[in-house]
Amino acid sequence: MNITVWNEYRHEKNNLIVAEVYPDGIHQAIANFLIEDGITVKTATLDEAEHGLTEDVLNKTDVLIWWGHKAHDEVSDDVVQKVQQRVLDGMGLIVLHSGHFSKIFKVLMGTSCDLKWREAGEKERIWVVDPAHPIAEGIGEYFELDQEEMYGEHFDIPVPDELLFMSWFEGGEVFRSGVTYKRGNGKIFYFRPGHETYPTYYNENVQKIIKNAVKWAAPLKRKRAVYGNAQPIEKLKGGMKI
Amino acid sequence: MNITVWNEYRHEKNNLIVAEVYPDGIHQAIANFLIEDGITVKTATLDEAEHGLTEDVLNKTDVLIWWGHKAHDEVSDDVVQKVQQRVLDGMGLIVLHSGHFSKIFKVLMGTSCDLKWREAGEKERIWVVDPAHPIAEGIGEYFELDQEEMYGEHFDIPVPDELLFMSWFEGGEVFRSGVTYKRGNGKIFYFRPGHETYPTYYNENVQKIIKNAVKWAAPLKRKRAVYGNAQPIEKLKGGMKI
Amino acid sequence: MNITVWNEYRHEKNNLIVAEVYPDGIHQAIANFLIEDGITVKTATLDEAEHGLTEDVLNKTDVLIWWGHKAHDEVSDDVVQKVQQRVLDGMGLIVLHSGHFSKIFKVLMGTSCDLKWREAGEKERIWVVDPAHPIAEGIGEYFELDQEEMYGEHFDIPVPDELLFMSWFEGGEVFRSGVTYKRGNGKIFYFRPGHETYPTYYNENVQKIIKNAVKWAAPLKRKRAVYGNAQPIEKLKGGMKI
Amino acid sequence: MNITVWNEYRHEKNNLIVAEVYPDGIHQAIANFLIEDGITVKTATLDEAEHGLTEDVLNKTDVLIWWGHKAHDEVSDDVVQKVQQRVLDGMGLIVLHSGHFSKIFKVLMGTSCDLKWREAGEKERIWVVDPAHPIAEGIGEYFELDQEEMYGEHFDIPVPDELLFMSWFEGGEVFRSGVTYKRGNGKIFYFRPGHETYPTYYNENVQKIIKNAVKWAAPLKRKRAVYGNAQPIEKLKGGMKI
Repeated sequence: MNITVWNEYRHEKNNLIVAEVYPDGIHQAIANFLIEDGITVKTATLDEAEHGLTEDVLNKTDVLIWWGHKAHDEVSDDVVQKVQQRVLDGMGLIVLHSGHFSKIFKVLMGTSCDLKWREAGEKERIWVVDPAHPIAEGIGEYFELDQEEMYGEHFDIPVPDELLFMSWFEGGEVFRSGVTYKRGNGKIFYFRPGHETYPTYYNENVQKIIKNAVKWAAPLKRKRAVYGNAQPIEKLKGGMKI
Repeated sequence: MNITVWNEYRHEKNNLIVAEVYPDGIHQAIANFLIEDGITVKTATLDEAEHGLTEDVLNKTDVLIWWGHKAHDEVSDDVVQKVQQRVLDGMGLIVLHSGHFSKIFKVLMGTSCDLKWREAGEKERIWVVDPAHPIAEGIGEYFELDQEEMYGEHFDIPVPDELLFMSWFEGGEVFRSGVTYKRGNGKIFYFRPGHETYPTYYNENVQKIIKNAVKWAAPLKRKRAVYGNAQPIEKLKGGMKI
Repeated sequence: MNITVWNEYRHEKNNLIVAEVYPDGIHQAIANFLIEDGITVKTATLDEAEHGLTEDVLNKTDVLIWWGHKAHDEVSDDVVQKVQQRVLDGMGLIVLHSGHFSKIFKVLMGTSCDLKWREAGEKERIWVVDPAHPIAEGIGEYFELDQEEMYGEHFDIPVPDELLFMSWFEGGEVFRSGVTYKRGNGKIFYFRPGHETYPTYYNENVQKIIKNAVKWAAPLKRKRAVYGNAQPIEKLKGGMKI
Repeated sequence: MNITVWNEYRHEKNNLIVAEVYPDGIHQAIANFLIEDGITVKTATLDEAEHGLTEDVLNKTDVLIWWGHKAHDEVSDDVVQKVQQRVLDGMGLIVLHSGHFSKIFKVLMGTSCDLKWREAGEKERIWVVDPAHPIAEGIGEYFELDQEEMYGEHFDIPVPDELLFMSWFEGGEVFRSGVTYKRGNGKIFYFRPGHETYPTYYNENVQKIIKNAVKWAAPLKRKRAVYGNAQPIEKLKGGMKI
């Protein structure tokens, strides 16, 4: 299992508060807890050549984790298209927090992916609403994050294939915080928490969920279906007509 | 209720067989049976300025019906983007047959929308699998089309919000022939039949389904949700923090 | 369109607080605002013969609204079975508040339908998460009920066909407050609010939602599918074998 | 992982054709190929005490596989209730073929679970429509069963959480042949093929699917949610009111 954690990696270099929380970058903080599970993890960031997502890297990636925020527009359309194709071919994709507005998530969803937001350091309580889902395994009925950015409904996404988590915010909003989709042979999990100024990715519940999601999103051994012109499997009574 | 029927309108001009079946174009054949229901129907075609889909036309359209095939690439990205925005704002969209490969459908789905196909004039039998759905009202347990192009699984679309119809083909394939999606405030219905060389749009079951779909897809009276930065509705215990 | 509003009608007779809020019973309060829409509304209550739900009443009912709480067990299994059959045959069913624990809802769901609850007169804020759904038409992004009983997740229901509303509660919980299901030819809407000691059914948003739901749940003109032994539609190559 | 394969086990004793195909019973044929995967498998049959499904057996069962046909009514309601409770508590359930009419499946679905059927030894072709699903791993785009009983739509089940397989039948019907549901903490997979007079359970595709389904349906480590009266997590502004 090969995981690539992609991070925009700008806040950590430009903002002292963020740099203090994630001195080696959000990508490294995520990589660190995944490695504990014996998973092979690489990282890639925006300012690398091809954003670190060369065709070779993508082809070897089983699950791609995506964190971006301020520089979504700087991600090249070419890379976005390659990631989309890899998802359709079976690569798992885990989109975190402000990645809701990334090109790749919007392209795979077909909607604006917009939402309400507020940076006020308020409390978030994340409830499990799908107790039979493997991504929720090991999570209690709910867990709390003392300080998080608020994301509120309406979240402009397609109807999720599965709704796993719902958030309660101190300021009065709710949010569909954990949702899954399939696209082609690939599986997608969007998970809400993870504002850059808070130590969210050190929270053990958040870590457990991302670890579970990586396993859930892993590709199956399966080629893409054959598309295009097809001969009849059964003999047509009148033969081939036009 | 204002309907706009959009048609590529090329086959009818270049292919005598098609011209015989749809002398005034597929768009006009569809418009004709919708008008019977007292609906205001306009048509628009690829070769008109802005493909006949000016901002004014789109803004006045409650439900847009889309038929395209050979010239998907000639539809301008700008028009596609405007149609997508109108769907998010609430306009209904009915995508017919080979429209599965249109830019607008692919953009709204996020997948390849590919499938198996065969032009052999074979029999299709369309089964109702969601008898509680208003789009299926007035349709028996199944209906048949004596000659149609085959579309076969795997159909590379997102998991439908609703699956209404499933097709049986003489040559041995099956297909999810009627599926719905929501995108933002808008509703989308994809309906499989309608190859240009067959009189499919004169079939009364096909007509009934499209009539039902128009009603189902009509926009609600509803503004888009407010997105972006939001003040707390409830007082935060610690006040606003960063 | 014929609506029957069914109410247990016990709290109103045994509890002065409830009697003050709903002097003619919750059923009458609901009937009153439906009648405004020109709908034909009857009421039925637990202590009537066959709970007021004779075969004749059921056969003439297009949509049944159900409110029960303390006496679910007193509803006869025979009536429950008849209501279930009518739903499968196409009758709409709207289950309100504590009706989550009614026999009819549990039988149609197949789960415990259990939840967390608290009677503390706290604030509920109900958010629209499916802006394209006709049941949400005319409702803003959210609305508030100053005092309601809390229902909290996990709500032990099957994955809803559609999730329309999500509640935020002052005490820290969230809830899937508006959900739809199809069963056979029938449509079901569960709507959370409506504790007997609060004037919830006088709230205009609640009334609007129930009015919308009645329209949405109305039966289609459609017979049940034919089930059982079926002759082949296509000729079998080897003939009929055993 | 502990699997219990339950079989009515009547046809095999009363019908020579069936006895020849499954000399040790359908349950044993299924157990045999599961054991190959190193899974601990027990069997249980209708005519054992408590149908072989004592509380102890059920408590130790991770996934229960169910085959029944002619004697659904002889399964005691008490056992059905215990199995339902175990599913809600997390036990996986795989319902095969004519098990669509079993008490346990009907109770968990809330519908009639009726369908069209025909015993004519015709060809069935099963198509994969959800290539990202682990239950479909290792299965090609489709596979064929030369002789099977036909099951045709409309299949009166709730809208599936996931639709994996669709069948094409020689006689002209289609069917949703592989569907999943969640109920409480438990996962359910219904799989169509398996008429008692055909060697369906020796087919390697059928075996692969059932093996996959067993893994997919395995319970998570998770207690049932806490239901009932709940204290507020957040302090209520006005305190507890009634």
